[in-house]
Parts: sequence; C-alpha cells; structure tokens
Amino acid sequence: MLVDSCIVPYVYSFSHKHRRPPMEYKDLLGGKGANLAEMTSVLKLPVPPGFTISTDACRAYLEGGWPVELDEEIAKHVFQLEKSMGRKLGDPFDPLLVSVRSGAKFSMPGMMDTVLNLGLNSESVKGLAHVTSDERFAYDSYRRFIAMYGRIVLGIEGALFEHPLEAARERAGVKTDAELSAEALRTLADHYLAVVQKETGKPFPQKPRDQLRGAIEAVFSSWNGARAIAYRVREKIGHDLGTAVNVQAMVFGNRDANSGTGVGFTRNAATGENVPYGDFLINAQGEDVVAGIRNTEDLDHMGKHFPEIKRELLDVFRRLESHYRDMCDTEFTIEQGKLWMLQTRVGKRTGAAALRMAVDMTKGTRGPDRTSWKITREEAIMRVAAEHLDQVLHPQFAGKGKVLAKGLAASPGAAVGKVYFTADDAVDAEERGEKVILVRSETSPEDVHGMMVSQGILTARGGLVSHAAVVARGWGTPAIVGAESVKIDGKKFTVGTVVVNEGDIISLDGTTGEVILGEMKLEAAKPPAEFDIILKWADVVRKGKLGVRANADTGEDATNARNLGAEGIGLCRTEHMFLAPDRLPVVREMILANTEAEEAAALENLRKVQQADFEEILEAMDGLPVTVRLLDPPLHEFLPSVQELRVKEAKTGLTKRELAELKAAEEWAEHNPMIGTRGVRLGVVKPGLYAMQVKALMAAAATLRAKGKKPIVEVMIPLTVTREELALARGWVQTEIDLAVKGLKKKPNVTIGTMIETPRAAIRADEIAEEADFFSFGTNDLTQMTFGFSRDDVESRMMPAYLEQGLLPRNPFETIDVGGVGELVKLGAQRGRATKPGLKLGVCGEHGGDPESINLFYEAGLDYVSCSPFRVPIARLAAAQAVISHSTGKSRTDTK
Amino acid sequence: MLVDSCIVPYVYSFSHKHRRPPMEYKDLLGGKGANLAEMTSVLKLPVPPGFTISTDACRAYLEGGWPVELDEEIAKHVFQLEKSMGRKLGDPFDPLLVSVRSGAKFSMPGMMDTVLNLGLNSESVKGLAHVTSDERFAYDSYRRFIAMYGRIVLGIEGALFEHPLEAARERAGVKTDAELSAEALRTLADHYLAVVQKETGKPFPQKPRDQLRGAIEAVFSSWNGARAIAYRVREKIGHDLGTAVNVQAMVFGNRDANSGTGVGFTRNAATGENVPYGDFLINAQGEDVVAGIRNTEDLDHMGKHFPEIKRELLDVFRRLESHYRDMCDTEFTIEQGKLWMLQTRVGKRTGAAALRMAVDMTKGTRGPDRTSWKITREEAIMRVAAEHLDQVLHPQFAGKGKVLAKGLAASPGAAVGKVYFTADDAVDAEERGEKVILVRSETSPEDVHGMMVSQGILTARGGLVSHAAVVARGWGTPAIVGAESVKIDGKKFTVGTVVVNEGDIISLDGTTGEVILGEMKLEAAKPPAEFDIILKWADVVRKGKLGVRANADTGEDATNARNLGAEGIGLCRTEHMFLAPDRLPVVREMILANTEAEEAAALENLRKVQQADFEEILEAMDGLPVTVRLLDPPLHEFLPSVQELRVKEAKTGLTKRELAELKAAEEWAEHNPMIGTRGVRLGVVKPGLYAMQVKALMAAAATLRAKGKKPIVEVMIPLTVTREELALARGWVQTEIDLAVKGLKKKPNVTIGTMIETPRAAIRADEIAEEADFFSFGTNDLTQMTFGFSRDDVESRMMPAYLEQGLLPRNPFETIDVGGVGELVKLGAQRGRATKPGLKLGVCGEHGGDPESINLFYEAGLDYVSCSPFRVPIARLAAAQAVISHSTGKSRTDTK
Repeated sequence: MLVDSCIVPYVYSFSHKHRRPPMEYKDLLGGKGANLAEMTSVLKLPVPPGFTISTDACRAYLEGGWPVELDEEIAKHVFQLEKSMGRKLGDPFDPLLVSVRSGAKFSMPGMMDTVLNLGLNSESVKGLAHVTSDERFAYDSYRRFIAMYGRIVLGIEGALFEHPLEAARERAGVKTDAELSAEALRTLADHYLAVVQKETGKPFPQKPRDQLRGAIEAVFSSWNGARAIAYRVREKIGHDLGTAVNVQAMVFGNRDANSGTGVGFTRNAATGENVPYGDFLINAQGEDVVAGIRNTEDLDHMGKHFPEIKRELLDVFRRLESHYRDMCDTEFTIEQGKLWMLQTRVGKRTGAAALRMAVDMTKGTRGPDRTSWKITREEAIMRVAAEHLDQVLHPQFAGKGKVLAKGLAASPGAAVGKVYFTADDAVDAEERGEKVILVRSETSPEDVHGMMVSQGILTARGGLVSHAAVVARGWGTPAIVGAESVKIDGKKFTVGTVVVNEGDIISLDGTTGEVILGEMKLEAAKPPAEFDIILKWADVVRKGKLGVRANADTGEDATNARNLGAEGIGLCRTEHMFLAPDRLPVVREMILANTEAEEAAALENLRKVQQADFEEILEAMDGLPVTVRLLDPPLHEFLPSVQELRVKEAKTGLTKRELAELKAAEEWAEHNPMIGTRGVRLGVVKPGLYAMQVKALMAAAATLRAKGKKPIVEVMIPLTVTREELALARGWVQTEIDLAVKGLKKKPNVTIGTMIETPRAAIRADEIAEEADFFSFGTNDLTQMTFGFSRDDVESRMMPAYLEQGLLPRNPFETIDVGGVGELVKLGAQRGRATKPGLKLGVCGEHGGDPESINLFYEAGLDYVSCSPFRVPIARLAAAQAVISHSTGKSRTDTK
Repeated sequence: MLVDSCIVPYVYSFSHKHRRPPMEYKDLLGGKGANLAEMTSVLKLPVPPGFTISTDACRAYLEGGWPVELDEEIAKHVFQLEKSMGRKLGDPFDPLLVSVRSGAKFSMPGMMDTVLNLGLNSESVKGLAHVTSDERFAYDSYRRFIAMYGRIVLGIEGALFEHPLEAARERAGVKTDAELSAEALRTLADHYLAVVQKETGKPFPQKPRDQLRGAIEAVFSSWNGARAIAYRVREKIGHDLGTAVNVQAMVFGNRDANSGTGVGFTRNAATGENVPYGDFLINAQGEDVVAGIRNTEDLDHMGKHFPEIKRELLDVFRRLESHYRDMCDTEFTIEQGKLWMLQTRVGKRTGAAALRMAVDMTKGTRGPDRTSWKITREEAIMRVAAEHLDQVLHPQFAGKGKVLAKGLAASPGAAVGKVYFTADDAVDAEERGEKVILVRSETSPEDVHGMMVSQGILTARGGLVSHAAVVARGWGTPAIVGAESVKIDGKKFTVGTVVVNEGDIISLDGTTGEVILGEMKLEAAKPPAEFDIILKWADVVRKGKLGVRANADTGEDATNARNLGAEGIGLCRTEHMFLAPDRLPVVREMILANTEAEEAAALENLRKVQQADFEEILEAMDGLPVTVRLLDPPLHEFLPSVQELRVKEAKTGLTKRELAELKAAEEWAEHNPMIGTRGVRLGVVKPGLYAMQVKALMAAAATLRAKGKKPIVEVMIPLTVTREELALARGWVQTEIDLAVKGLKKKPNVTIGTMIETPRAAIRADEIAEEADFFSFGTNDLTQMTFGFSRDDVESRMMPAYLEQGLLPRNPFETIDVGGVGELVKLGAQRGRATKPGLKLGVCGEHGGDPESINLFYEAGLDYVSCSPFRVPIARLAAAQAVISHSTGKSRTDTK
C-alpha cells in the first residue's frame, strides 16, 4: 500500500514519487496510468504531463457515487498541470486541452476509451485559433471534441454526428475531412452543439470542469457496461477491480505537416522477429490511425520524413525494451517536430511470436548506451500463455467470417465440412469422400461411429461435459455444444431465419464456439521450433514437482499423448471401449442376461476385447504408468432410451429383443443418473464386471511382459464414498491380481487407488486412504456435487447468466472453484497424506489442463495432473509456471 | 479398560472382581455376562456359577481364527468351575453339566442362543442317571442335548430330530414327551447319535471339551449369520462389537415336581403397572416356557406351589429394581426347592409402559429392607425412546399378519383399505364411501388428489424422499414406497404368484414397511397421560437450548404441528401449494406463457391463492416464527412427462395445448433435475416468481396484523451456492418487503435467510453469512450431494446392499452421516457464526426428527430442529435427551 500521506489520495500525477516503480501499481493506477508514470518518473521519456485518478476512486464511485473529496483533489492536479503547461483549461485566449482515457489493470475493450481535446468551448476555441494562428485546426479540434464527447459521454448516437459531416463534405464537394475549410468546420461545430441540445435537452457543457467531471464519470460508469462485463467474464477478469482514469495534456499530431501520430511495437508482434514495427500518419490524431481512414505508413517511411525523430523513437524503443525486459507496444505523437510518448505497455502477441520472443530474449539483446539485457529461462516460460500454445497447436481459420450461431467452445480447433444430421448419414458421406460436420441435438453412444468420421461436431444442447464434448475433446475433434439458437428439424437446421440443409457447408471454430456459414480457409497447426524448446525448459523446472499425464482411452490417443509429452495415463476410461459400435451389442447382452451363465458368457466376450484395448494402451505407454478406471457410467447409458422405445411401441410395436431392451432400460433408468447407480456402486450390483475388467487388464500386462515390455498398471475405483466400499472393491481387484500373478517369480507391482470425486470422499480422505495406494481427484464430478450443478443441465442454461451477473467469478467447470471445490481438494490431499504420507495424488478432471487450476493443484501438493492429450503441452507449461510462481512469488505476465 | 493383569484376559468368572460394577462392562462381557457378574459379585443373588468368554475373544476369532491362548484360559475356568461345583465335566460317575449362551452387548435375535446340558456323553449320562437316581431324567437331558447341539452347533435340520420324537410318542401311544419312558428316551438318544453320524459323517463329539469348543465357536460364528446382520442393520447396531459367550453350571427345573422354571418381570412390561409379572412351569426347562408347549402359569399360581420361593423371588425383584433403578426382566429356575437366578436385564417394554414407568419411578418405589428409591426427571426422560412415542402416536395393527411384500417404511402408522391404481379411481371410490389404498409405480403431482383421499399409499418405486414419501409423511398418511416385488399391471398387481385386483383389501404398516394381504384390525393411537408429562419435562430441559419447529405447508398441518408442541415452522414448502389440483393449471399457465403479460397474469393468479394459503399458516402459528421457503423444485415437475406426451402423440396425436405442454416439458426437462435448475436458480431464470411469492406473503402478514394477530415471517432462499447469488435474491425479496411496509409506522421485522444444502454453501458459509439473517441446513439435499446419492435412485436400489455389506453403518438419509455430512453441518455452523456470531441456525431436513441426528445438531450449536408435525414430540424428547447427554456424558438407556 502507498504510505505517502496519512490519507491515501485518489489522484496521482504521472511524476508522483512512489515507493516502488510505478509499473508495479497497476492495481491502483491501471495499466495505462502505471506505465505513463513509469515513463515519466523513471525513464524520463518525453511524456505530456498529466495525472491518474485511481481505481480506488472508481470503486468508491461505483459503490457510493462521486466521492466528495475527489473534486478538490482533481482541482489541485488540474492547477498543477495548468502551471506546468503555462496554460489554463478553458482559457479564452490560450486554452490548455487534455485527453481523458480509461485505464484498467488489464486492457479491456468495451469500456469508454478516449475523449480528446477536452477543455475546448465556444470561447476557448477562438483562443486556440488565435495562438495557433490556425482557425481551421481549432474548429476541427472543437467539432471532433463535441462529437466524441457527445457520443461517448452523453450517449448520443454516432450517426447524428456522422451524417452532418458527410453532408458538409458533399456541400463542399470534397472527399476528405482534411479538405474542409475552417468555415465549414465552424458551421459543423455549431450544428453539433444543436444536436447535443436536441438529444439531451441541455446545452453542451461549456465549463471545462463540468466537461472533465462528465468524462471521468463516464469512464467510471462504463466499467459496468454490458460489453465490459461480458469481456471480463470471457477473459476471467475480476468484476471488482474498477478502472483508473488518465487526464493528460494534449499534444497535436494534426497540428501541421511537421506533426504526426503512430503506434509502434519494439518487435514484430505477429512473427516475433526482433525488428521494430509501426504504423504512422502525418498530420493526424491517434483516432485516425485506429479508424483506418487513411492508409498508414511504416517506420521506414516515417524515417524518410522524420529521420531524427525515427532515431529518437528507436532509442526510446530500446530503452523501453531494456527497462520492461519485454516487447512493448507504444503510442506516440510528433507535434511540430517534437516526439511525445503517449502510452506504452508490454505488447500483446500471437502464439508463434510469444514463443519466438521468449526464446530470443534469453539470448541477450542490445539495450541503450551499449548495455545489453536478457531474461532467464524461467522468465521465458512465464512469458508464454496457454492460449499461445493453443494457437500453434490447432488449425485456425485464416480470416474472420460471419458468425451464424454461438455455443460452448467444447473442443478447440477449426473444422469445415458438410452438414449431416445422423451418424449413419455422416458415415455414408464420409465414405463418399466428403468432409463431414455432424449436427445433433445432443449425442449418445449410438452416435459414436458418426462422430468418429466427422471433422467437427455441433450440438444444440448439452454442456462442456456432455457426451459430445467429452468424446470430441478426447479425440481432439473440434466441437461446439449447447448452441441453443440452432433449431434442428429433420434434415435441416435453422438459426433465426437462416436455413442450413443437409450437405450445406459450415465452419466451426471450437476454440471460440463460433459457427460460421460457408467454407472458411484453414491454416494448419504449425508449432514453431521454439515450442519444443520452451516445453523442454518447462519440463526441467517442474521435474519431480508436478507431473503431467494424459486422459486417454485408446492406443492411438495414448501414442498421441506420449508424443505431446505425457508421462503416463492418469485416466483410462474403460467405458469408452464399451461404447465402440462393435462392443455395444456385447455390453447389452451382459445387461440383458437372464441367467448367470448368459451374463458370464457376455462378460467373457467383453473381456477379450478389453484385453486387446489394454494391450494397445499399455504398449503405447510402455514403461510409464497407466491408471485404468473401472467402469463408471450408469448402465442405462448403454441401452436405447425408454422414451424412443415407448414411442416406437406406440407407433409400430416392438420386437422381442426391443421389448427386452425396454424392460432393462426401464429397470436401469434413473431420475438423476449422475448421482445414481454409477462407479463402484455398479461393482456392488454386478461384481463380475469389475473382476472381468481386472482380469483383462492383467492378461494384457502379461502379454506385454512376455514381449519384453514394461507395463505399469494402476487400477482405479470410481465414485467411492466410504472406506468400507473401497475395501470391498479393493478385495475384488486384489483377488484377480493374485490369480493373475500366481506362480510368477517376480510379482509385478499393481497399485490400487480411487477417485476422490464426491465431497464425502474428500472429507473422509483420512479413512479412505487406509485402503488406497493413490488418489485421483475427479474434479468434474466434485464440482457437480459441491455446487449441486449438473453440467448437462446447469452449464448451458444458467452459466452465462451466472457469470454475467457476477454470481460466479468463473465457470467452475473450466477453472477450479478455489473457495469451495479447491478447499475440498486441499482437504482431501492433506487428510489422505495424514494417514499415508507417501500417498500418490493426482487429478484427472478437465481442470487438469487448466493453468489456474494447475496452480492450485501444485499448492495442494498433488504429484501430477492428467488432462486430454491435446492439453498436455499446456499442462506442462502451466505446471512449470506454477512451480516458478511459488518459488518467486510472481505470477505470469499477461501477454496473450 | 481392565488392568487386573498385564495381559487382558479373554475369560472372566461371574465372580471376577472388576474395577467398576460389572454391569458397566457390557462392551466386554456382553449384556448377559455383565448382568450375571453383577448379580453374582455385587448383589450376591443365587446364581449358578460360571464364566464369560469376552467379546474381545470373539473379535479375535472372527479376525484370525481361534486364539491359541483361549484354550488354556477356558481350561483354567472350567477347572475352577468343576472345583466349586465338586463335579467334573464328562465325569462318568457324577458329571458337571453346563449351559452355553451367547450374550452380545445388545440383545440380538438371529444369533445362536443356547445349548443346555453340555457335558453329557454316552458314558456320563449313566453317571447322571446314577447320582440323580433318575434314569429317565438323564436320558431326557441327553437326547435334548444331542438334538440341540446337532441343530444349533452342527447345523442339522431340526426336523431330523423332531420326527423320531413324534414317532417315539406314537410308538409309546402317549401325547407328551414327559410321558415317554427312560427306555424310549435312551433309544431316542441312540437314534439321534446315528442322525448326527449320518448328517455330519462324524460321530457326535463325546469329549466335553470338544463339545464346549464347538458350542463356543458356533456362537462366535453366528455373529456373522445373515439374520444377525440383518437385525443389526435394522437396529443400527455396529457390526464390529462381537458377542460374548457365557458358560454356566446347569441347574434343572425339570428335575422333579419340586422344580420348575420361569421368566419374570419386576413390573408389567405391557402396561407399565407396578405389579410383578411372570410365566412359570413346574418340572420344566427354560426352553419349554419359551416354546409354549404347555400352558404357563402366573406368579400367583406359582405362589400356591412355592409360597416361600415366591416371597424370595419378589424380594429378588425388589433388589434388582432398586439396584438397576429400572424394571428388570429375569429368568429363574427352581431345582428341588432352591431358587436360582439364571439371568436378568433391564426389560424391554411397550411405548405406553415406558412412559408410565418413567413417570412412576420419579415418585419413589419401595426397595428391599425398608429402603426406597426414585429416579430424577432427567433420568425419566432418558428412559423413553423415539420408538415408544411412535407406538403411542400412530394406529397399530392389533396382531400379526402374513407379509405379502416389504418396502421402505416411508411414513409411519397402519392403514387398511381397498386397492386402487389411479388417483381418479381412488377419488371415485372414496366418494362411494370406501377406504382406499392408492397403489402406484410412483406418484407425481398429478396424483395428489388421489393421495389426499387415501388411507395409505404404496409405491413400487422410489426412495424415502420420493414424491409419495415426502407428501405422505407431511400429511401423516401411512406409506410404503419402493416395494420392488410389487409388479403393477393395469388394474391389478402381483407379488410372486399372488394377484391383488382393484377393490381387494390390503393392509399397510408404514412403521415397518410391511404389506399384508387382507384386513388387519387397527388399534387407534392413544397416548397415555404420561406422554404429556414426559414431553413437558423435556421442554423444560431443552428450553433455550434447542428449539423444535415443524415442516408444514398448510394451515391444517400448522395447527396440527402446534398442537403437538411445535414452536414455529422451520420449513413451509411453497411448492406444495402449487401442486394442489386447482393450482397446477395456473402454474402451467405461468410456465407456458408466451408473453410477459401472460406470465404476469398467471403470476397474479398464483399470488392470490398463495396469499390465502399464507394467511392460514400464519394464523395457525400466530406469534411463532414461520420460515417460508421460496419455490424450490424444477419447473418440469409441474408439467406432464415428455414420455407420456410423446407416446400419446404417437398413438392419437396431441391437442394444441398438449403440444405447447410438450414443448415446455422438453425445454425444462433435465438429465439430473435434483442438481439442475432448482431453488434460487429458478429465481435467476424467472425473477418475477420470487417477487410474487414475497408479495403474497407480505400481504398475508398485513391482513393478519389488521386482525390484531402477530405474524412472524422469515423468508428463506433455497439452494444457494455463493454469497453473490444470495445477495441478488435478497435484493428481490427486500424490494418487495420495502414496498409492502412502505408507510407503516412500525415496520415489522422480516428476516431473510438461506438453506445450506450444497456442500459449497457449507464450506463457504463464512461468505454466505454476510447476506443471511439465518441458515437452515437442508440435510436431505446435503446428504444427496455429499455422497452423490440420488435418493430416488440409490436408496431403494443400493441402500439395502450397502447396509447389509457394512459399506455404510446407517442409511444416511435417516440418521445423519456424522463423519461426512455432519462435518459439513458443523463447519457451516462454525463459519457462519464466525462471520455473524448471532446467526440463527436451524435444520429442516428429515434428520430434524431423528434422535441421533438431533444429538449432532445440538453439538453443532444449532438453535432449533424442524421436522414433520408427527415427529415433533419425538424431536422434543430427543432434544432434551441431547441436552442431558451432553451435561451428564451419558447416553440414553436402551429400553425399547
């Protein structure tokens, strides 16, 4: 906290002397304000003077309205600013003009951005014309100010200012605003004043202090605008931070031909190449560069007009990079031949650029005055975000398309194909050589063969753990789920008035959840060389501290995971083997069995196919541990739905087989299957099932050992709630293991553990640990039960509203809920280890691939995280970042 | 723990000197052994000598087989016994005979009971004949011993001994065993020996030590017999206690006409009257009294034969009562004119007797030697069990019937009526004046009008929180749910081969879950005068420590609850008002509304009827707090089922209205409604709903205040998971309250609180308390989520297996799971009070009426429990018992 005075002030000049470098005060000053202060007071760069109204003031305003003491503080700082500039706000002869900009801790579109030229009024505009001897400039500035203030602060529609401007150009018979005369601009300004009067019922504020307060309040209020809130939700930014406001003396890039304005990057933000890059316009204000009205020029071009200034700018760039030890993004203005730096920040970059810069900067870079600087490998690791890796790992669309619908981004990557509505149609189309997008209301095991051949999957219902989402994520197939505006009707779907028929082409962006009509061009995934370098460095950092495994159910997935750096399998879901089209009938035989002999025969058939599956997986993970979870889902998931059968019965009657299936489906149907007869409870109902699975697993391991391989098997019991339950299940498993290793000279070490996925298991982990060799926290289910949120129901229906209304800071299924679920994970880890200090602990929920959650798991003392193969690189990086954060106390820099 | 020697022995003689009174060593000696030791070593009553093999030995045996050191200890005690009796086991001239009896801490049918006459063999029987000069007696004893040992220890079918006995009687042409000659009995004994050889392949053990070890092992093993386990599950007795074994010198009530045997109660166990009561047989062994072969005589009659012994026995009774300070149950034997006490224990008693004795004993009773004794009121309270109150509160069947099927005992009490299978048929029948039992697969809101007119409800599916169970319990209607053997098929049901047609009479015992074919006679509920006395004393004890409220949803229920002693309503479920037949259409209008206007109109209609409901309830609870929970269940519960509509659509097509209902039902259908869009989440989806409810509630309160009443309103938000959620909902509620009290001079104090029913809410109770005036723990849902047990699915399918296999010690929906859910309740209470020390805490799950759970809630510091009206007396008693237990450290005596 600041301790400069007894009462912490609300307003700080850029040159305020802080106890620590101002760039560390982003919480208080916002990013923009902190960096302006850093440039002014530490780097001594040419920055127009000004002051920052702190986020404290914003929070106070949002809670209780305009703080009384704020007026006085602002007045004091305005007075100082006027003194240092030798001009006064609203002075009718030589007015000071200021810009007002928002600046939150994190850059945030959707908030009020900028008001320029504040301080002009119908009197001072004349003074400006006089002192600049440029009436045209003065009225151009005034009309810009009125329009900007009217639109942004007073909420008047922009078109009401645009149309008169167009009309003025037409009247004058010119194409650009720059060609309008002073007279035309004065008339326009008068017209704008009338627009404001008409729209607001009040005259345009003429007193600069009223203008200033209006602009500041508008910034404060925009913090809670709908777009800003939505952005914070998406970017996981806290709603309680508030924004700062920066008030800065204006400099004019549109003063004359010896002036200009631009944005500059100290390196190329797209490629990462160590070459400065910028866009520049002569005789223009900043908004012109952003608006793209005129074609900008690059820095080389600028150097032709302003060779001295270019040298000065490149020196500033070097100083900034050397100071921030990172690529910086800047805005600058040249006013009548003098360079002014308007703002800077550590620049955003693409995934490829992030990787390249991070590696490059460890090699040493020339700074100002013959110095040089470099970053450590740890710092390099901290410079790369999960999103950066995602970008280079998945194909992306080459451009932007028109979004037809939006759903939950269930599995990242981009896909293009023809729409089909049934699994069978999808398979037929694929056999004809078409690229297929499968569109379903939701998917079930019966759709798996169609999902398998699809480029991408789109569902209208379901959450991020729905069947479609989980299966797609497991395979790395792009998928969007819960796109509620998609209405499927036979072999077409509609979104609003748009109809998409079977065979029409759509494009899915599984990273953003966007459905695009028509064919988008794809860019293949192409991780640069630095990808492997950074991940190898990350592995060194996290080695022995936090392992990374993958969730994989097939040999192919396992191979894929291993190639991406997985150090084992943390979750092999055996039900996925049951769902394969050739297995499902056998599973049904088992469920429908009328006699023990029939059941035993069906189990024996399943055993054979399971053994083959296990062999593939163990072979792919040779020498690395493979955690096999025994069957978990409720049995009715393997049967047709009761409703479908009942409807068919009403329509056409049922075959004998279908009648048997109906009976079984009704018997096994549950009101709340997610908290029904699942997991180890299945084992209690059908003990032969688990025995069969262990038998298959042990036989697979034996086959591999015979081939000279080193299978490492861990058997995991799902959904345990009591020690006694685990002891019973452990007994079944141990019996099969003992049978399998009987007579072996060297007994393989097969460990037996359990998922911790009910709140009770976490609370009573002390008891459960007595029967477990390891725990794996199933944070998906743990989140469902801790909140009482059924993902399939709550996530698509409630979550958007919950996030937007701030009822939850994050979607707890994406990032672990630290205060609730996270506390249970920590409790479970602590109590488990209290009983058994060497207890191995892992996590295999989807949180295992989420960087922030990984950080909590590291804190909780877990040995490894396990995630879908495609998240393994991200998990390796995030694990290293967690380790570094905890040893340095610093978290990752935001550069995505 | 015993510290008599360094190694704690496995065997203790009855006269062993313990550090504390032997009756306190029931854990170690079992109930029977402890009481035998008490009578022997403390009371110095005439008890045949013997010894007890401890439960430690049993546990050791069950874990690791026969403990090696046990042989030696038994041998030592047998030697001492032989010495004190001056006879030896198996002595061919004058043999010592012993009885071997099981004796666990709690009396437990299903375990091996008794083997008499052990020590006889084909040699010693002759010695016995010789020393008693009674060959007939000796061979009668021998044949009894072989049969008993063969049946109980060797597991031979009883019929194999019964048939030869019948044949012998026929051969001899006599009617009773007593008439058989010595010769006939000897032949019979030889025959029995042959039966044993044939059935076991081995000769009958002739060595007394083998006999003894066999009998002891049989007792140990019977601890884990199926019936014993089932009994422990039902009676909530731990599976790890083990049983003790008592070996005692035989005395013979069948010695001659100067002998006899009997059972005696120090008071009347049926009525509680302070008059000793007993059954007696001359010249008989104990088993004859129990078997009921001959008609027994009472104590008066016995006094005619044995006036001295009767006086002696009554003196023993007085000494026992005075010593145990309670009614005792005894077994005694007279051998040739001498009285022997074979065992005693505090006697079981009916509900009415328990109440009467408890009150009587506070008044003072004459003891032996002109002393007198009495118990305190606290002790009296501790003498009455919940089951005792249940017995006197609900009608009971007058006798025992043949059980047709068994289900979950969902709502206590007995009911008789004609079977109907639809709600409409039930209503028609009731209008014809019939008594109705509604039988359904499961019930839904559409069945409510039929349930309302039924004497009892039987469902084939569903758990203890299914719709049928909850509604029936709320009304006090007897109900059995989840009776899976009941197969409903149109207008009949079958159980196995028995068919029950519409209109057939069945009887339901909702206290035991038994369905009985035909009409059982009912005894009305008739609480004796002592019922009120005990409960008033209980109220005094718990006053200011633990309040008792009721869960009630109608004025009638509220009145009922108040009459039963409820101090307010802890849970008024507003959805029950929505489900009434005249309300359901209006609720559907609201859900189906296409426009805001339609929705508002439907809400307005609901508001009016809700207001009337609230007025009734508030009037019934005038001056006492009423906690109204805003709407909780998922909306699809108010709609017809999708499947029914889809089937109807396939069969006959749907009306326009039905199509609209189908669309809505599909929209609101959920995969896991229990953890879906419920509770406060509904408020987020349809904010007008909660506002309407609060408006109705406030209007009702205003109406009552206008009548001079004192309504006390508490508004409760269900299913909260975050502080922010509660703050939002609190806002809606507060807005309506503010509107309602605007302009009032004296603002009524309406508090706003929340259910704590998700694990997250309990964990983050510190934050949630910031927005809550009170918490009410919803332990039903909390149990569902903590375990991941959907009651509707798991309870009927898994729970019996889980309890029998010891995977759970109790059904956690009946008695709170102390280690898991209980810990969350304690954590929630502690964290809530850490934020707000005065936070009012209650519980409104069904555990609120369960004595053991009430004990935990008192420990957790809760202010009140709330339960269904019919459980209120039980809760008042249990609350007082919890208070007394915690102040004295003693828990309730088991006298049920």
